[in-house]
Amino acid sequence: MAGNSFGQLFRLTTAGESHGPGNVVIIDGVPPGLELSEEDLLGDLARRRPGQSKITTQRQESDQPEILSGVFEGETTGTSIAILIRNQDQRSRDYTEIKDKYRPGHADLTFDAKYGHRDYRGGGRSSARETSVRVAAGAVAKKMLRQFHGVEVVGYVRQVGNLVANVPDPETVTLADVESNIVRCPDSAIAGQMIELIERMRSERDSIGGVSELVATGVPAGWGEPVFDKLKADLGKALFSLPAVLGVEYGAGFRVASMRGSENNDPFVPADDQTPRIHTVSNRHGGMLGGISSGMPIVLRCAIKPTSSLPQPQPTVNRAGEATTIATKGRHDPCLLPRFVPMGEAMVALVLADHCLRQRAQMGS
Amino acid sequence: MAGNSFGQLFRLTTAGESHGPGNVVIIDGVPPGLELSEEDLLGDLARRRPGQSKITTQRQESDQPEILSGVFEGETTGTSIAILIRNQDQRSRDYTEIKDKYRPGHADLTFDAKYGHRDYRGGGRSSARETSVRVAAGAVAKKMLRQFHGVEVVGYVRQVGNLVANVPDPETVTLADVESNIVRCPDSAIAGQMIELIERMRSERDSIGGVSELVATGVPAGWGEPVFDKLKADLGKALFSLPAVLGVEYGAGFRVASMRGSENNDPFVPADDQTPRIHTVSNRHGGMLGGISSGMPIVLRCAIKPTSSLPQPQPTVNRAGEATTIATKGRHDPCLLPRFVPMGEAMVALVLADHCLRQRAQMGS
Amino acid sequence: MAGNSFGQLFRLTTAGESHGPGNVVIIDGVPPGLELSEEDLLGDLARRRPGQSKITTQRQESDQPEILSGVFEGETTGTSIAILIRNQDQRSRDYTEIKDKYRPGHADLTFDAKYGHRDYRGGGRSSARETSVRVAAGAVAKKMLRQFHGVEVVGYVRQVGNLVANVPDPETVTLADVESNIVRCPDSAIAGQMIELIERMRSERDSIGGVSELVATGVPAGWGEPVFDKLKADLGKALFSLPAVLGVEYGAGFRVASMRGSENNDPFVPADDQTPRIHTVSNRHGGMLGGISSGMPIVLRCAIKPTSSLPQPQPTVNRAGEATTIATKGRHDPCLLPRFVPMGEAMVALVLADHCLRQRAQMGS
Amino acid sequence: MAGNSFGQLFRLTTAGESHGPGNVVIIDGVPPGLELSEEDLLGDLARRRPGQSKITTQRQESDQPEILSGVFEGETTGTSIAILIRNQDQRSRDYTEIKDKYRPGHADLTFDAKYGHRDYRGGGRSSARETSVRVAAGAVAKKMLRQFHGVEVVGYVRQVGNLVANVPDPETVTLADVESNIVRCPDSAIAGQMIELIERMRSERDSIGGVSELVATGVPAGWGEPVFDKLKADLGKALFSLPAVLGVEYGAGFRVASMRGSENNDPFVPADDQTPRIHTVSNRHGGMLGGISSGMPIVLRCAIKPTSSLPQPQPTVNRAGEATTIATKGRHDPCLLPRFVPMGEAMVALVLADHCLRQRAQMGS
Repeated sequence: MAGNSFGQLFRLTTAGESHGPGNVVIIDGVPPGLELSEEDLLGDLARRRPGQSKITTQRQESDQPEILSGVFEGETTGTSIAILIRNQDQRSRDYTEIKDKYRPGHADLTFDAKYGHRDYRGGGRSSARETSVRVAAGAVAKKMLRQFHGVEVVGYVRQVGNLVANVPDPETVTLADVESNIVRCPDSAIAGQMIELIERMRSERDSIGGVSELVATGVPAGWGEPVFDKLKADLGKALFSLPAVLGVEYGAGFRVASMRGSENNDPFVPADDQTPRIHTVSNRHGGMLGGISSGMPIVLRCAIKPTSSLPQPQPTVNRAGEATTIATKGRHDPCLLPRFVPMGEAMVALVLADHCLRQRAQMGS
Repeated sequence: MAGNSFGQLFRLTTAGESHGPGNVVIIDGVPPGLELSEEDLLGDLARRRPGQSKITTQRQESDQPEILSGVFEGETTGTSIAILIRNQDQRSRDYTEIKDKYRPGHADLTFDAKYGHRDYRGGGRSSARETSVRVAAGAVAKKMLRQFHGVEVVGYVRQVGNLVANVPDPETVTLADVESNIVRCPDSAIAGQMIELIERMRSERDSIGGVSELVATGVPAGWGEPVFDKLKADLGKALFSLPAVLGVEYGAGFRVASMRGSENNDPFVPADDQTPRIHTVSNRHGGMLGGISSGMPIVLRCAIKPTSSLPQPQPTVNRAGEATTIATKGRHDPCLLPRFVPMGEAMVALVLADHCLRQRAQMGS
Repeated sequence: MAGNSFGQLFRLTTAGESHGPGNVVIIDGVPPGLELSEEDLLGDLARRRPGQSKITTQRQESDQPEILSGVFEGETTGTSIAILIRNQDQRSRDYTEIKDKYRPGHADLTFDAKYGHRDYRGGGRSSARETSVRVAAGAVAKKMLRQFHGVEVVGYVRQVGNLVANVPDPETVTLADVESNIVRCPDSAIAGQMIELIERMRSERDSIGGVSELVATGVPAGWGEPVFDKLKADLGKALFSLPAVLGVEYGAGFRVASMRGSENNDPFVPADDQTPRIHTVSNRHGGMLGGISSGMPIVLRCAIKPTSSLPQPQPTVNRAGEATTIATKGRHDPCLLPRFVPMGEAMVALVLADHCLRQRAQMGS
Repeated sequence: MAGNSFGQLFRLTTAGESHGPGNVVIIDGVPPGLELSEEDLLGDLARRRPGQSKITTQRQESDQPEILSGVFEGETTGTSIAILIRNQDQRSRDYTEIKDKYRPGHADLTFDAKYGHRDYRGGGRSSARETSVRVAAGAVAKKMLRQFHGVEVVGYVRQVGNLVANVPDPETVTLADVESNIVRCPDSAIAGQMIELIERMRSERDSIGGVSELVATGVPAGWGEPVFDKLKADLGKALFSLPAVLGVEYGAGFRVASMRGSENNDPFVPADDQTPRIHTVSNRHGGMLGGISSGMPIVLRCAIKPTSSLPQPQPTVNRAGEATTIATKGRHDPCLLPRFVPMGEAMVALVLADHCLRQRAQMGS
């Protein structure tokens, strides 16, 4: 229970550090008969990969996955799938500074407090490098969801700093829309400004936060459990488990605080030509009622903090407890948002895949 | 895995419906030797109880708990603790309307989609009535946390509609402050206005949302796991598992979206007379870094939607799929916030109790 | 993880002590739509009940179950089912002796070592009284298995002392055969001798061990997981989790130690008129190959030790560490076997119900 | 919940097949600060390795482990440890026969029934090859148990066919005694006969079963949970999860069936010079009372069936359902016992390591 597993039936377990030999995930519970190869993982891994564009960190990692088990003759066998991604760019660096200083906003001090020691190699297990295998597992989840129920999970950047995208219909955004620019914002009018802002942050040796929106379409009504494992609860946990997430909301989110019930409730309307089942026209409930999917698109948003590592000097304390300053020399992202998108999608897909199987276990389909 | 259990080592499992015989919780993993009696549960149960004040629902429940096991001669034995709270006010009501109509904003339709049937007795398992035993379990968690580490968990109402309380130092708010008024807002200047607003909602047959803030002080640095079971992730799940929560944030929360790293990072400062360990002065990180507690107060906020059940007619659909209207006749809260506070505290305490034991399992203390 | 839950998808959690208010079980994961009432539980509870015949303990318990949740209008709802069985015969007794002495063969000393205290009320949580709610849950599992797949689970007494029953075709034994005598042995020729032996044990203030055989028919091929959660592994755990079980075997069991492969392998034979699928004629593999059900009857045996509590004086040690003697005054079974049968059946049914749902989760049926 | 994880707090998750790229284990929950390197794993891996002596299979595997994570500067970090063992001898073989025939005694038919397909490469996931990483994980568990509590786990061969070793004091057998001959039997008088018998089986193209005894010394009183997760239950599951195990017993085992309580009970005796705590002189309870360790040596026995794969022709059925014969051409063990010993030890050590941490979680030490 040291927290390296996620999910109940579609379940992943991970290991690996930023500057060790590599990262590995074991995915348990995948049904047999799904076509799967390393090719299927490359797309999302490339979207998460460092060094992918001028507005991300320049660390170079090819992130080439090796499927070690669970696939035979091009199909999943039903047994556990292990995927290994070796680290490549373990640049020999001068750890002297970081070794004895606590980086503000990082897990250095809390790791030390927890374990009584510190893996100072670029953050060790607390580095975002561990998300590579989450993204690989998420790609498997997406395949299963698409094949079983036609579910699609798409994420994008909704806000960078004070620049907020206009996305009137989240459920219509496609992967192509998202990938049409390097900041992954479907509002092309503002995407350019976001890129400029991020480049300015790099030049000012600073960083900037933002908001990512995540949308799942095609989810049948009925997924999620009524009490603790509400779909919103498992999605909330999934997104908060990603580095740098300080807030999660769905549907109307924090706006509900100032709303009346008569404004906020989404009235049910009968089935019609376009929607062959009872539905709502508005979607302030973000696709979940009582924590169970309603059949409407699931829409979530995450607040991502600005990167903590900064090339500019910041006041801090060393392990001896003395005041000092630190300026990170490593290669970091001036804004986490573009690379966050595939991570967020992966976590949403993993939760949905899990609840897909949970629903099938209890209800038979 | 039907989602009626919560936690790994300090683990509760619940059962019960709104209008059945009662609700029961089994708490597993509580260390032996803790003094415990039904008395210890009454305080928080009274704070959650319906009918407690003029601004809550008028359903009357005494919520008298019976400890069925796990306590002997006034102390926990180390074996599983079962607590039963029988329902009393199962008023014989006319279910005709609700039985065949889907209430907007409720789980009626999603339950039906999930299970193929519906427990229409006031919401069945999806009613907030199930939180009574969560609050009882939370009281046990609070006792353990206080005794083992001096941890205190206090929640309060931060916002109702557009009325936002001024709470400059969340970590200094006491239970007495919170309980000084029936809306549970420590800013007495605005509490009166909140009460008025809620009463106005009732008279207008409407409801209003809000924000609750939850604070845990005394949590040692080092709790939480580095990857999936980050403390923030488990707290996020815990709070999203409560009815009506549409958003959760901690520390600076959604404000980080428009901040720079140089603004947002909390610099570490050396130990001093008042704080005998490395700490931060600001607390935009809300007491968690890398998902692990930093020793600073943990500060979270939840967005709570306005009650969905409304005495005014709302458009909806019946089980036959035809358009109709519904006006709830039951006794409901015009604002969920005052009764949410003990529920939110309970969930925070349960997560902390779990991670307290998890830390002890791996690290020995 | 204090071990009061069992199963993954069909999952029970229990609480309760021998001389407290009662025992409770929460069953999570039961599919909706199963007809269920307290009546369904009474049969097996009566078979487990103390005081049922002259060869069992004379403690009187009616073991009347109350379903607290999860059933509405006579059918399971899909949400968690809580069942409460209150204790009745909590005879005011003189605990002086037992309070300070460790009963040989009992958990007194190990409980004390574990928890640092002792619930001396008749064994507390380590009493076989906790099995009452397992049997109730097992009755629910049996209903589901029968309805979904026609699975039947039947147990009986195979051996008492040196008296071994002749049961040539375990898969043909019916509940009626088992219940045709109070010792629950389908070999009526030897059942009478077994009863005499048990009565002699009582008169000699001693007890006697035995072997119970458990048979599940109708289990489809394919249940069980290939590595850790082999069906044989989960069944083994289930049976070892019952009090007094010192050995478990299936199929040829310990006899395989002296067999050759050419003798032990069960050859596969083609489908024929009576068995419309590939099968084996012999069943030394006890219905499981590679830990996965083969479609043949599952046949297990448990070795049950003679009751440890004896009315005759036995040497032991008190809590002060001094030598003393103890003679149990309570009402105990001179042979555990007759009452073990429904407990063993329940545990087998619970494991099968769990794997039934697990198979459905991953494979869809 | 597809059964590729084991343990609650000291938890392993595995993946890998007989003839795929390799096997991998992720161990979660290991405390930080344990010295660990690949060297520590080699001893037990060599004892499990195929091709180790003339009485085992001649498949050649060097079983060289690579630690991918969780160890830094020679010590465990507290985060998840991944160990990879690549397969080497994936001899290009003629699968034609095995591909379409069900080998008697193997999981071929049950895998097919479960998953709807078959990984015919030497058994795929159901091959004993997956135990390599269990043994590696067991070596880590042994290190922790030895360092924390001085616990030692030793296994040996007690019986091969009708040859039964004389081992009067199981708790005194050392690793050196066990390793003094290739059959791993500490009774040197009979070890030679066992080796001869196994060689004869190979020459007769047959195989032979046996019994392995497993002993854990130094286990403190108090480990194990009182109800479902009794120490005996978790040990029973662990051993039944190994291939070819058809029976498990501890202490007096199946002999209790014909014993009286007055014979079977182990009387407690006061502490004395050699044993500074209350103990028993006899150990018919095998070190566990009420499923909780008593402080006496834990003694278990497993019945292992004769290898199912035989070079001699056996009647069987092909996938088309037609009668045929099969003679396995692969390289198999004529007796599984010598290589079973380290597997059995590993599973015992993993269970004890898990309960060590569970005890610490709830009780603090």
